[in-house]
Amino acid sequence: MKVVILGCGRVGATLATQLEQAGHTVTVIDNNTEAFQRLSSEFQGERITGNGVDESVLRRAGIENADAFAAVTNGDNRNIMASQIAKEIFHVQKVVCRIYDPIRESTYKGLGIETICPTVIGTNLIFQAISETRP
Amino acid sequence: MKVVILGCGRVGATLATQLEQAGHTVTVIDNNTEAFQRLSSEFQGERITGNGVDESVLRRAGIENADAFAAVTNGDNRNIMASQIAKEIFHVQKVVCRIYDPIRESTYKGLGIETICPTVIGTNLIFQAISETRP
Repeated sequence: MKVVILGCGRVGATLATQLEQAGHTVTVIDNNTEAFQRLSSEFQGERITGNGVDESVLRRAGIENADAFAAVTNGDNRNIMASQIAKEIFHVQKVVCRIYDPIRESTYKGLGIETICPTVIGTNLIFQAISETRP
Repeated sequence: MKVVILGCGRVGATLATQLEQAGHTVTVIDNNTEAFQRLSSEFQGERITGNGVDESVLRRAGIENADAFAAVTNGDNRNIMASQIAKEIFHVQKVVCRIYDPIRESTYKGLGIETICPTVIGTNLIFQAISETRP
């Protein structure tokens, strides 16, 4: 399967390595070339420097033949816009978008984009851990 | 149960409201008074302005009688240090610490502090979502 990942932070870089190790062909996009240093030294996939909300950059990353796209930059808006482009213009089958802001997350969840909100997940996990305590 | 939360960002503020609604007594600490604006208007708990790695601030927040402590500021080091103080000096029964850096998380997990790493959780969730795709 071909996967395009936007954002080479901790999550993007780890995801790229894990997906490649699972046998997928992975391309990573970041607007900062230094970010690619986070990739494992064994990573064989392509690195594209550019702005992920720019269609020509996404095309260079092979989005037209991608089966999956993950938007994991640190910017919620950038992730949302790039996910919409991947889904609506390039018809990528699986689009996953990280959104930190729970309000924006619930809005875009309704628009057919699979969203992951670390804020909500983290809050729920901590709530559960504390609720289990017996004083 | 008495709970002290360090950090009134999105996670801290939501957690405070959820725990209070679940019947717990909650105190929130943040070094920036404006952060308390994130709290729900119904939140009745105490707000303490100060540095959460300062023992006197933790005492003002009632840490000596707390059953649980959650460190959810945006700084990994601050969360780690405050959690260690809560556990080792004040013997709080349940201490939960958010750590963004997976390397630091695995180090401190071994030291008896319950850690939550949104980076690892997010990566795993996106990996699973993409792995389920059938091209």
